[in-house]
Amino acid sequence: MEKLDNDLFLRTLQGQKTERKPVWLMRQAGRILPEYRAIRENLKDFIELVKTPERAAEVTIQPVDILKVDAAIIFSDILVIPEAMGLPYEMQEKKGPNFPKTIQTEKDIQNLRIAQADDLDYVLKAIEVTKKELKNRVPLIGFAGAPWTIFAYMIEGSGSKTFSKAKAFLYQNPALSEKLLEKITQSTINYLKGQIKAGANTVQIFDSWAGILSPTQYHHFSLKYIRYICEAITEVPVIVFAKGAFFARQELGNLPCTAIGLDWTMDIKESRNLIGKEKILQGNLDPCALYASDEVLVAETKKMLDDFGDKHIVNLGHGVYPDIQPEKVKLFIETVKNYRQK
Amino acid sequence: MEKLDNDLFLRTLQGQKTERKPVWLMRQAGRILPEYRAIRENLKDFIELVKTPERAAEVTIQPVDILKVDAAIIFSDILVIPEAMGLPYEMQEKKGPNFPKTIQTEKDIQNLRIAQADDLDYVLKAIEVTKKELKNRVPLIGFAGAPWTIFAYMIEGSGSKTFSKAKAFLYQNPALSEKLLEKITQSTINYLKGQIKAGANTVQIFDSWAGILSPTQYHHFSLKYIRYICEAITEVPVIVFAKGAFFARQELGNLPCTAIGLDWTMDIKESRNLIGKEKILQGNLDPCALYASDEVLVAETKKMLDDFGDKHIVNLGHGVYPDIQPEKVKLFIETVKNYRQK
Repeated sequence: MEKLDNDLFLRTLQGQKTERKPVWLMRQAGRILPEYRAIRENLKDFIELVKTPERAAEVTIQPVDILKVDAAIIFSDILVIPEAMGLPYEMQEKKGPNFPKTIQTEKDIQNLRIAQADDLDYVLKAIEVTKKELKNRVPLIGFAGAPWTIFAYMIEGSGSKTFSKAKAFLYQNPALSEKLLEKITQSTINYLKGQIKAGANTVQIFDSWAGILSPTQYHHFSLKYIRYICEAITEVPVIVFAKGAFFARQELGNLPCTAIGLDWTMDIKESRNLIGKEKILQGNLDPCALYASDEVLVAETKKMLDDFGDKHIVNLGHGVYPDIQPEKVKLFIETVKNYRQK
Repeated sequence: MEKLDNDLFLRTLQGQKTERKPVWLMRQAGRILPEYRAIRENLKDFIELVKTPERAAEVTIQPVDILKVDAAIIFSDILVIPEAMGLPYEMQEKKGPNFPKTIQTEKDIQNLRIAQADDLDYVLKAIEVTKKELKNRVPLIGFAGAPWTIFAYMIEGSGSKTFSKAKAFLYQNPALSEKLLEKITQSTINYLKGQIKAGANTVQIFDSWAGILSPTQYHHFSLKYIRYICEAITEVPVIVFAKGAFFARQELGNLPCTAIGLDWTMDIKESRNLIGKEKILQGNLDPCALYASDEVLVAETKKMLDDFGDKHIVNLGHGVYPDIQPEKVKLFIETVKNYRQK
């Protein structure tokens, strides 16, 4: 087993008492750093960056060097899975992802293949390069989208406020929906196992569109498949972040995973009560608090740190927004590092 | 006092036991009806329709004639308030509202006037025409946006997934934010009182962007101003619909209003427990259930009716989506009308 210079993040996931709380940010790789944009500008588009392991590794490590986070997360995209299954997408500047072809029929689902780890060798290679270049400084997080969130894009074809086409598909074709969700789930398990073999020390499952399902649909069409993934991934700790799934906190607490991410609308103490004492919690500062004055940002951060108590990995309640000043992120991270639990 | 042919909606709001539950749909006027689109096509744009009382009255009454709902809601827009305060907007086809100028500074806020009911005479006139042409068949609902939601558009300038500019303003300028929220609140009270004088039998406050605030910010920057409105409007029952504000249900239950709307992510029994026994609850079928087969739609509707029990006004958990078939809406309404509480 590798020895890491800073294993605070992994020790916290193991349930150990630590000298301070570990901190990282969702979307820390990319977006806010000028150093990221310098690399990005020399490439055709976002997808080319995702598919160029040396560059992906470079932007993965930038926040470790510049922001001093306690964990790196591989620079990639949740939508590499549909592509590996046979449904390619393009990333439109300022508009987000777009699938020229979407899933509409049983035949479309039959035509999809179950992705193997090898189909995503560019991500695995990026993880290998990152691990080598990180030189054991901090752990590396791998990730994938939750099956429901991937399903939502494959049916809808793009981002949406309501994902009403994807939700309509669930209502109209529950049996077909399950078939597609199973294929995505199996692909995701293969992919995450590949990431772990390549060196990921932890994996996080992002259910970005959890919050638009009714509690009943969430139970049947999302949580069930997240559970399959958690059951299959026994090699490393699994973190589940289901944005907006306030109504499922109790059920999330029963998943065979190590940690649960909270978004900023979820009251911390209520969430701890619902999720139970065992799980590590991750989150959940309002990403907009990073627009505040230094004084307010420090106060909001400390309040959050107090409210969580122990078994806590510090993060925002959502990915960091593109126009946040890196100096504010640094202040947030320093505040966490200087904090001692009362 | 006028005598209505069908006063089921008002008797339910008065807490009376009724022979069946009343039903209406948010966004029932417009969007889904071909009869609406026929009228809309002959006008320049959405805003012209809002500003033409005879036409606005006509589309307000259409769902009473065609869908047989138990209440009409005046066809208008929440953004008439910024316009009446001196901040005009345009409605871009498929893109939504856009404000050419937004609020950024203290001076911008000072330059805004407090709207008087007269500034919105075209809405009041539409209410008067509607009341006359409704011929006492069903009650008429007036409405306004909650101050936070109006504030969000005035700062952000358009719709947004995160409303990060508006939220940044709250963090950076809390005192200025309060000044703007107070001006919006006073304008909204004047406006709602005008609507009631013109004939609205009930008013609903829509806090469409409640769910993107942290619980603390929601308490300070939204709920407080909704409370002022509820305290000021004593003439008719007030319904508060705060979409996504699951974290504030207990506090919403303490507002001096008559009814609380629930969105489809909120568990019905849990919401009743949090809100308390006194309030009438409104909602909350997943709008996407109207894409389902007749059989599934009827089953989902009946399940919701069972779960609410009494003190319930039936509605969706959000505005009806534009591509829903009117036949599905009719089936939903018939299912409610044929239902008898166990």
